[in-house]
Amino acid sequence: MYQLGIVKRKIQRADRAAVDQLAAFGSATVHEAMGRVGLMKPYMRPIYGGAHLAGTAVTVLLHPGDNWMMHVAAEQLQEGDVVVAAVTADCTDGFFGDLLATSFRARGARGLVIDAGVRDVKDLTAMGFPVWSRAISSKGTIKATLGSVNVTVVCAGAVVNPGDVIVADDDGVVVVPAAMAQQTADAAAAREANEAEKRAKLAAGVLGLDMYKMRETLEKAGLKYID
Amino acid sequence: MYQLGIVKRKIQRADRAAVDQLAAFGSATVHEAMGRVGLMKPYMRPIYGGAHLAGTAVTVLLHPGDNWMMHVAAEQLQEGDVVVAAVTADCTDGFFGDLLATSFRARGARGLVIDAGVRDVKDLTAMGFPVWSRAISSKGTIKATLGSVNVTVVCAGAVVNPGDVIVADDDGVVVVPAAMAQQTADAAAAREANEAEKRAKLAAGVLGLDMYKMRETLEKAGLKYID
Amino acid sequence: MYQLGIVKRKIQRADRAAVDQLAAFGSATVHEAMGRVGLMKPYMRPIYGGAHLAGTAVTVLLHPGDNWMMHVAAEQLQEGDVVVAAVTADCTDGFFGDLLATSFRARGARGLVIDAGVRDVKDLTAMGFPVWSRAISSKGTIKATLGSVNVTVVCAGAVVNPGDVIVADDDGVVVVPAAMAQQTADAAAAREANEAEKRAKLAAGVLGLDMYKMRETLEKAGLKYID
Amino acid sequence: MYQLGIVKRKIQRADRAAVDQLAAFGSATVHEAMGRVGLMKPYMRPIYGGAHLAGTAVTVLLHPGDNWMMHVAAEQLQEGDVVVAAVTADCTDGFFGDLLATSFRARGARGLVIDAGVRDVKDLTAMGFPVWSRAISSKGTIKATLGSVNVTVVCAGAVVNPGDVIVADDDGVVVVPAAMAQQTADAAAAREANEAEKRAKLAAGVLGLDMYKMRETLEKAGLKYID
Amino acid sequence: MYQLGIVKRKIQRADRAAVDQLAAFGSATVHEAMGRVGLMKPYMRPIYGGAHLAGTAVTVLLHPGDNWMMHVAAEQLQEGDVVVAAVTADCTDGFFGDLLATSFRARGARGLVIDAGVRDVKDLTAMGFPVWSRAISSKGTIKATLGSVNVTVVCAGAVVNPGDVIVADDDGVVVVPAAMAQQTADAAAAREANEAEKRAKLAAGVLGLDMYKMRETLEKAGLKYID
Amino acid sequence: MYQLGIVKRKIQRADRAAVDQLAAFGSATVHEAMGRVGLMKPYMRPIYGGAHLAGTAVTVLLHPGDNWMMHVAAEQLQEGDVVVAAVTADCTDGFFGDLLATSFRARGARGLVIDAGVRDVKDLTAMGFPVWSRAISSKGTIKATLGSVNVTVVCAGAVVNPGDVIVADDDGVVVVPAAMAQQTADAAAAREANEAEKRAKLAAGVLGLDMYKMRETLEKAGLKYID
Repeated sequence: MYQLGIVKRKIQRADRAAVDQLAAFGSATVHEAMGRVGLMKPYMRPIYGGAHLAGTAVTVLLHPGDNWMMHVAAEQLQEGDVVVAAVTADCTDGFFGDLLATSFRARGARGLVIDAGVRDVKDLTAMGFPVWSRAISSKGTIKATLGSVNVTVVCAGAVVNPGDVIVADDDGVVVVPAAMAQQTADAAAAREANEAEKRAKLAAGVLGLDMYKMRETLEKAGLKYID
Repeated sequence: MYQLGIVKRKIQRADRAAVDQLAAFGSATVHEAMGRVGLMKPYMRPIYGGAHLAGTAVTVLLHPGDNWMMHVAAEQLQEGDVVVAAVTADCTDGFFGDLLATSFRARGARGLVIDAGVRDVKDLTAMGFPVWSRAISSKGTIKATLGSVNVTVVCAGAVVNPGDVIVADDDGVVVVPAAMAQQTADAAAAREANEAEKRAKLAAGVLGLDMYKMRETLEKAGLKYID
Repeated sequence: MYQLGIVKRKIQRADRAAVDQLAAFGSATVHEAMGRVGLMKPYMRPIYGGAHLAGTAVTVLLHPGDNWMMHVAAEQLQEGDVVVAAVTADCTDGFFGDLLATSFRARGARGLVIDAGVRDVKDLTAMGFPVWSRAISSKGTIKATLGSVNVTVVCAGAVVNPGDVIVADDDGVVVVPAAMAQQTADAAAAREANEAEKRAKLAAGVLGLDMYKMRETLEKAGLKYID
Repeated sequence: MYQLGIVKRKIQRADRAAVDQLAAFGSATVHEAMGRVGLMKPYMRPIYGGAHLAGTAVTVLLHPGDNWMMHVAAEQLQEGDVVVAAVTADCTDGFFGDLLATSFRARGARGLVIDAGVRDVKDLTAMGFPVWSRAISSKGTIKATLGSVNVTVVCAGAVVNPGDVIVADDDGVVVVPAAMAQQTADAAAAREANEAEKRAKLAAGVLGLDMYKMRETLEKAGLKYID
Repeated sequence: MYQLGIVKRKIQRADRAAVDQLAAFGSATVHEAMGRVGLMKPYMRPIYGGAHLAGTAVTVLLHPGDNWMMHVAAEQLQEGDVVVAAVTADCTDGFFGDLLATSFRARGARGLVIDAGVRDVKDLTAMGFPVWSRAISSKGTIKATLGSVNVTVVCAGAVVNPGDVIVADDDGVVVVPAAMAQQTADAAAAREANEAEKRAKLAAGVLGLDMYKMRETLEKAGLKYID
Repeated sequence: MYQLGIVKRKIQRADRAAVDQLAAFGSATVHEAMGRVGLMKPYMRPIYGGAHLAGTAVTVLLHPGDNWMMHVAAEQLQEGDVVVAAVTADCTDGFFGDLLATSFRARGARGLVIDAGVRDVKDLTAMGFPVWSRAISSKGTIKATLGSVNVTVVCAGAVVNPGDVIVADDDGVVVVPAAMAQQTADAAAAREANEAEKRAKLAAGVLGLDMYKMRETLEKAGLKYID
């Protein structure tokens, strides 16, 4: 873990069919389907609203202020991948801009999740290349120190192994281990199955207190109504 | 204050006419009209731009990671209310999403102010249900511990009593005690009365230095012009 | 430096032609052209997306919660200026709103960069008056203590002398010393000259590894590919 | 609430006997005895370790960068009081130093709790005058704008009414409403009564799992042991 | 990874001899010996100065505001272990105090590393029970939701597997994977071998520029000396 | 300003006699004597309590994660200097430890002020080598990119020119421009001249309200006493 100077070429990507199923759900639903784990910290924000992404992770481990490994990662990309970039220490520099986005897209990437900063956000927005980052910054980076590609990383508090599924939208970024992709997709589908019915009831004025039958539990817990 | 396990059913809402008058002003104007107090911390941000809200507070006291009381609050809502949710410790979890928004709206709520996180922001935006929060997060919550509804709370640094007026827009969230609603609306109206005239003068190039007659005071304070 | 109670009327503004050339570039390009220095901290964010600004700095040194000097600064503005406001201690109050924006624009200002808060962001957005700030806040300010106008200030971590060029966009705010305006514009132009060609190659799938001839250096640095 | 320009001379201090009983307990115990409410945010830290304070609150509402009201508060102090200072916006300036501490002590104050900065910490430490603050800063303040004394304030997220009991130590600062002082002291005493016995058992190697009889509940909740 | 409701009883602890060797080094040396990876975020601070800890990790995954699993972890402790506690979302509550410390010590634990808050720091200091935490807070926790013991966790940005070596001191907390314990101890020893000699030279006024033979490289990189 | 790759050998240090006079005052007094400017941000904290430092600045401009220039700076030190280190972007890495401290001290340095992290704090404390920093971190740095020595820098929000006087203690770090050293020392002395008398009066129970004759101004400002 955390090996430096390594590029792993063969990685086990999550099953494509499962990824496509996960793509139908929001990050909140997937996070619940995972049992409420696997979420990145909420400081990770999309650079433009409305983006929705699901893909398989190609991971990059960077040093602060050095984006050399991003170019190494580009070669390892396949159609449907998402680049997940971690840094060995907190850094807000702009590691990524429109040129790298052009390259990543050409190699098949659907987007980027980076626990650091990015720049050229106007161009990235125009390209429709979605990015979730902790910062936006004009500050450029150098190319001097080796990191790694496709090792296990911690990105914004979440462990990401190469090949894991990344689901990201306006609510945040969730990581689904490759081996759990299908069962998570199933759990997410089950969870959403009766949402429409619930929504209709609530819209009609039915209270959650009644719909979820909470009144008795609340009373037992000691809730008191006063005037 | 801060009682747990309590739901107060009868609260004294601010006078509806005064609330409607306050609805005509921005949060900055209301905050000035209050004598520059009553403002929530500026980390409270709207989940989408351009929203403007005025309503009477139904307060909720939550525990970190537990949104049980939100369902209890729904039953206490009346037309024109705003839910104001505080948490007993800092927390960014997503306590609120589109299902609760559907329920709150059905019961008459105009929006939510929460010193924590929310999710489903894309849906909430599509619904036009305005929310001011400290975070956006996919992280869900449980329903295990009693909080309270309609007790005095501290939300983002401001004291909110049930029935107080909440005025919120892109600039922030201000709390007007119910008993001060009318006088604050009057003060806000007085404040805005001559703004158009001032704006016209400034647009014509008149300096604030002259319009506000500041030159003498500045000189007396010791301001020196050098070349 | 940091003198209080001073207004410098005659300042040496950067050469207008150079400013106009710099206006063609983004803050990231200008920052690179500067040798990767001169950037404000990335907490400085535009109040609306898509704004792009280049102009000469009129500096203001404020005290927390006191915007008196903003009115003094208005008189010193010329066509093409940008107001750069620093505060003697961290503060998020709303020092600036639509009235001051009206005045600044009438006097020739193109925008504001302030290491504090602003308000009336809906109006400022409607006016198309661009602002980069650390916060948005309804909280108003008083007019009681002298600061200075057109002294050297530190704004969001960057030294700004009156007359320096400010280039700001979605990526951040960069400061170009007046004496370096032309050489920086030239360096920025040189930098962008071959970007189109690079972009085309990357879009065609050429890797940065090959285009920038990084493979040998990476190998020498010890990078290892494993399966 | 939050009135500016007001000094309330007659306040209802919590019962002295109850305060003295509360002085025997740490802030953690008192916070539990309160039902886990009433705690200030954990960014409030003592300026030196080992201090322990219990007293009745004299509250001060300040403006950022302005400590004028501290002098007004000094006159309202009685033996056994604690000054609790809130600011209308976040500020880290040093509002308080050794001269004010000398004055406060001479008037009977036992310490200070301030949601801002203090200075002269070496002198304050030498004096043994305990302070809990959000920051330490050399930055001085002015005396220009009216705040209030003995109005309800929000200090570090907690509502404090004049006369409330403040209990502070290395773990933090808790506020006990004056009317709840005795019952909280009783609850704290009950809580501590069997701590010695528990501590002895745990020190002997007995597990909390057994002492608190958690095994069955954990199993029912679904906890699984694997090898 | 991140499984909830699991207690793993059999874990592979790092070799005791290697742990004992690592105990001789500071966290900075061990971090360098690891190749500059494996460090927790610097917000993790010791509750008292001068503590130094090396031990094998028993990991705990907690929910915000809920310390139930700490009691479950106690049973899994062996002589020489360190409890490493992660939380599923940012939280500063006081999950740990003197009673749990008494229990942990009785079961063999040498200390605690927790990405949350602790309380009773005066007692913990008196006991000499070292803790590294992100916060100190009186706020207590409940026992309602299952987490896990001895699963892989992310603590303060670092991946920790049960059995890994934790080395902590005033400078921070570093994690050494169990399988790398011996090689890291060797590398640390090699690193320190000639530090005494270097220190003596530097103390005698020899410059690092000469001792590390940097002058040529600096000149080649373009460093210019001016008067 | 902000030139990279430059070492300025001849700098104009502040007058030694003035520095020695400034050494008699705390940072708060010096900051007041400066007219309440020149203070670094309060996140700069001493690594151990009780340190007090006054000296002339040798400045260093570093890149994130790279401490190469610290060795270059060592050669420029003279008896009575203080190293002031700035970084081109926010970084908490440990740029400095006991070896560099040994070198700096041997060359005459009295201490270090660094807007980044340091390590080996136990050793530094034992050496009595005072450091003010924004963080403590085991994370080491590389030596790959040129910065500068003795150029103007912004350190923790304050402009520092080589040769300026640095005064630092438990309350913070203040920068006195070399040319203002003597007048600031005089102003500080004048300020402290009658502090003893004031302290004695306050200790005797005289109120600041009376000693500073504030009552009339307060009344004029509208302060109201109520019962």
